Amino acid sequence: MINKKYLTEFLGTGGLLSVITGSGLMGQALSSGNDAVTLLGNSIATGAGLYVLIMILGPISGAHFNPLVSVMAYTHKQLRRKDLLPYIASQITGAIAGVWMTHVMFNLPIIQTSTKIRSGLGIWISEVIATLILLTVIYLGLKYAKKHIAMIVALTVTAGYWFTSSTFFCNPAVTFARSLTDTFVGIAPENILGFVFPQIIALILILQIIKK
Amino acid sequence: MINKKYLTEFLGTGGLLSVITGSGLMGQALSSGNDAVTLLGNSIATGAGLYVLIMILGPISGAHFNPLVSVMAYTHKQLRRKDLLPYIASQITGAIAGVWMTHVMFNLPIIQTSTKIRSGLGIWISEVIATLILLTVIYLGLKYAKKHIAMIVALTVTAGYWFTSSTFFCNPAVTFARSLTDTFVGIAPENILGFVFPQIIALILILQIIKK
Amino acid sequence: MINKKYLTEFLGTGGLLSVITGSGLMGQALSSGNDAVTLLGNSIATGAGLYVLIMILGPISGAHFNPLVSVMAYTHKQLRRKDLLPYIASQITGAIAGVWMTHVMFNLPIIQTSTKIRSGLGIWISEVIATLILLTVIYLGLKYAKKHIAMIVALTVTAGYWFTSSTFFCNPAVTFARSLTDTFVGIAPENILGFVFPQIIALILILQIIKK
Amino acid sequence: MINKKYLTEFLGTGGLLSVITGSGLMGQALSSGNDAVTLLGNSIATGAGLYVLIMILGPISGAHFNPLVSVMAYTHKQLRRKDLLPYIASQITGAIAGVWMTHVMFNLPIIQTSTKIRSGLGIWISEVIATLILLTVIYLGLKYAKKHIAMIVALTVTAGYWFTSSTFFCNPAVTFARSLTDTFVGIAPENILGFVFPQIIALILILQIIKK
Repeated sequence: MINKKYLTEFLGTGGLLSVITGSGLMGQALSSGNDAVTLLGNSIATGAGLYVLIMILGPISGAHFNPLVSVMAYTHKQLRRKDLLPYIASQITGAIAGVWMTHVMFNLPIIQTSTKIRSGLGIWISEVIATLILLTVIYLGLKYAKKHIAMIVALTVTAGYWFTSSTFFCNPAVTFARSLTDTFVGIAPENILGFVFPQIIALILILQIIKK
Repeated sequence: MINKKYLTEFLGTGGLLSVITGSGLMGQALSSGNDAVTLLGNSIATGAGLYVLIMILGPISGAHFNPLVSVMAYTHKQLRRKDLLPYIASQITGAIAGVWMTHVMFNLPIIQTSTKIRSGLGIWISEVIATLILLTVIYLGLKYAKKHIAMIVALTVTAGYWFTSSTFFCNPAVTFARSLTDTFVGIAPENILGFVFPQIIALILILQIIKK
Repeated sequence: MINKKYLTEFLGTGGLLSVITGSGLMGQALSSGNDAVTLLGNSIATGAGLYVLIMILGPISGAHFNPLVSVMAYTHKQLRRKDLLPYIASQITGAIAGVWMTHVMFNLPIIQTSTKIRSGLGIWISEVIATLILLTVIYLGLKYAKKHIAMIVALTVTAGYWFTSSTFFCNPAVTFARSLTDTFVGIAPENILGFVFPQIIALILILQIIKK
Repeated sequence: MINKKYLTEFLGTGGLLSVITGSGLMGQALSSGNDAVTLLGNSIATGAGLYVLIMILGPISGAHFNPLVSVMAYTHKQLRRKDLLPYIASQITGAIAGVWMTHVMFNLPIIQTSTKIRSGLGIWISEVIATLILLTVIYLGLKYAKKHIAMIVALTVTAGYWFTSSTFFCNPAVTFARSLTDTFVGIAPENILGFVFPQIIALILILQIIKK
């Protein structure tokens, strides 16, 4: 029998990646090269999608959709040890499935590798800052305004797409899956570490800060 | 005497189609060919309109505006058998009236037939997935966050316009009515079945899944 | 001594007209002729402004900002007879003041007359429908979802700018004041009656329907 | 030991400036010169960011992020005298840090001076009006709709970017920090006084009005 929580993390992360990838594709196809319009559609759709996913799946699995969030929940005893790895595995496989499903919907080759370079000191620092912000927002949001956490996280990501040079990946599952699409939202595989490493640094920092 | 619930489904579905068709028309007229800007206006207006319609008409008829939703409500004993066909009839006639009313507002020929091709395996699969998502969102939204159902459904559709290649019809009444407008949101009559068939498959799938 | 409610209607309607006129001006100045982008800014800003104005001024005056709404409130005994004319006078003078203040802010001649033609059978019908929708939304919104009335009205107007050919004036004070600005949101004085007459027809219709 | 409230004002104002500056930069980089699209991204991101910052930091420091708001809070005995200067110092240094951090993220020279002229009678008057509006919204919002204050302030600023010719600075800390970035949102140092002076006039006016 399938564990309901794991399935929810799989489906939710898949849905999230589908919104991210699909809205980027749609914008690219329609915007006549005005990437700011694509980013508007991409950021509004992702925020809207995240709000919905957190509202309807949060009550089942907590709606982490992000290994960093699961680790943070585990260190705060809101996720059991035995659930941690399955959560992360569900998120990673779900993310990949979401990208592939989007390729199917848009009649594109399913298996792709991104060629989009996202690299440089500024971007790496941006990704540390972005991840610090996301994890702080989730931590304080759950502490002070739990009822509104879906809107808070959604609008953080909508804004994050715009004000960080790394465009707010903040999520190793998302980062890896986005290396599998050679479209607007892709990231070349050789740039993955430059994103995941900053994300992990931010996680370690935030865990230290919260502990105090 | 007119049944208040049926009239509400007629007016609500009409209002929905008017927002969909009118905002597409307006975008097309003003966007100098940048279809991504049209889709932004179209998706924001449709989400805004849906939120309003569900908030003010939900308390009267349940605000289905969609035969699939009415069937799902019927199988969950939230709609009486004798109301099912009148609901669907109200939705279909309302949808058509909404499109025609929009043509009148924009000084266009009332009777039109769309020539917009929306076809292909990707689009058909997209429409199955889109409808599965919409019905799941409604099912879980009503279960876990009923108070917020209007915003949840509205933002699902706003995002859906962006990340699915079929642009989230998910509704046989909407599909049929959109074949009657030769504008941005139209669908050629010969492509209707390719949308309605996936929608029905999704409905059957979701009813099987929920039953368990 | 100034009556607090009348002052509130004056300031609120002024604020509304300032948002409408100013955001249209800003869009026009920046959008390089892509009017759909201007309409996006115009409709998002107007919705946002209306939400704020209704939230903060509603508790003081009811936040009508519209003679039609004041008449509807009067017929439902939610506005006293002796307040009706002062409310309407405050709305009209506030609307004019809002437009003029915006001209001052943008360094434009204060006194202007619009040359923008908004006329034709489609537009007149559109304005009847738009006003019917606005008044119905307010009536049902207050009845079924009073707590959310600010968001409901705001999103109705954001959507309305997009799906009606008359772009949802629905308000004689707004209509008159917009004849005093020769910018994106203006309306030529000779077209005022073609808007106010449909608005009054819609008011009479809605009062008849509600009475039943 | 660091005072938690002061740190919160520092981080919150820094976050706000980062959203403002970063989203302006992103829009400029991607919009192919269509500044209305940049302003859309800029205004939507800033509103989204403000909502989040007020929701998660409000419970700690009150989420002023603005010396004028701190002075207003002090005069209403909601901020202690000994906290006033530290609050303002935290806001100004936080604002500068936010701008500099954004330059780092976007690989730009950290130390910059804006060359963007924002001057003229219309703009000065606009900034008086804008600040009057912001402070009134905060005062009445806290009085009548405290639970919704985050959304109210956020949407005020989103709309404000569009309908005022000064684009709604309304904040001396923000004004000064924005002189340190030679990008879309910058303001030349010689124009700072022309913004801060109107802001202070508005503060004095509002304090007089509220007193009555």
